[in-house]
Amino acid sequence: MERIPQITTLCYIEKDNKYLMLHRVKKENDINKDKYIGVGGHFEYGESPDECLCREVKEETGLKLTSYHARGIITFVYGDDVVEYMHLFTADGFDGDICTCDEGELVWIDKDKVYDLDIWEGDKVFFRLLEKDRDFFSLKLVYNVDDELTDVILDGKEQAV
Amino acid sequence: MERIPQITTLCYIEKDNKYLMLHRVKKENDINKDKYIGVGGHFEYGESPDECLCREVKEETGLKLTSYHARGIITFVYGDDVVEYMHLFTADGFDGDICTCDEGELVWIDKDKVYDLDIWEGDKVFFRLLEKDRDFFSLKLVYNVDDELTDVILDGKEQAV
Repeated sequence: MERIPQITTLCYIEKDNKYLMLHRVKKENDINKDKYIGVGGHFEYGESPDECLCREVKEETGLKLTSYHARGIITFVYGDDVVEYMHLFTADGFDGDICTCDEGELVWIDKDKVYDLDIWEGDKVFFRLLEKDRDFFSLKLVYNVDDELTDVILDGKEQAV
Repeated sequence: MERIPQITTLCYIEKDNKYLMLHRVKKENDINKDKYIGVGGHFEYGESPDECLCREVKEETGLKLTSYHARGIITFVYGDDVVEYMHLFTADGFDGDICTCDEGELVWIDKDKVYDLDIWEGDKVFFRLLEKDRDFFSLKLVYNVDDELTDVILDGKEQAV
């Protein structure tokens, strides 16, 4: 079997010092089951990162983004057979009203409270990077199949896990 | 046939107001045949963009990068069957001496002279963006199979071609 990397977008929409989080309680056989994540999803063939971003946000939230920022790229490695390139964005402008989402429940969470949620360990790493308003970053997160984060590499430099 | 996007890095190494360009004269059946391009290449499975960057630069030039910067992502669409996500970097620090390259001839070109070379029309668009020292950008370049650039979309906004 040829191993083909996945290419996705991941977006944290911001308002009043909160992030819009998706509580993934609706899909079965979901690698993110019961976790809180941002919105986003897989690229359709030929889409640019920002085209994928705007389409996925519209589909999952009903919102039309009017202001967004590319913040980093996350190389997510899970065991031997899952590699995903997640194009990470934050968004601070949008039109429309939030709709119900097929994939979970959408909730606004205070930025300093996201660390207390059931989130991937590595997501805490990039939440801290997002707080710093730093340049575009490249973050590699390596997990084993027991969901344990084993390696964190930021801009080519190994970090303490 | 499933259409699988390619994922690559593209790097312009800088020194004394010149770019290190690769004149692709050595490979047959090369989409870049006779053109001047930057160095870089395809991701190996599980590599992060910067890991791919450093490996490809070492393989193609013999240089070990010590300072580099993610500048943008280029969504390159060619006809109906080629989509490539090019992670664009510039590099301003390196160790070692330039070796001979299997894929072409490495030459230093004054930055303001690159526009006169045989390069892809769209490359001129991102060279201009690189000159501006602007934030990380997303650029979509669409070509037809006659090598004509038909669409240029910068950060979601259609540009004049």
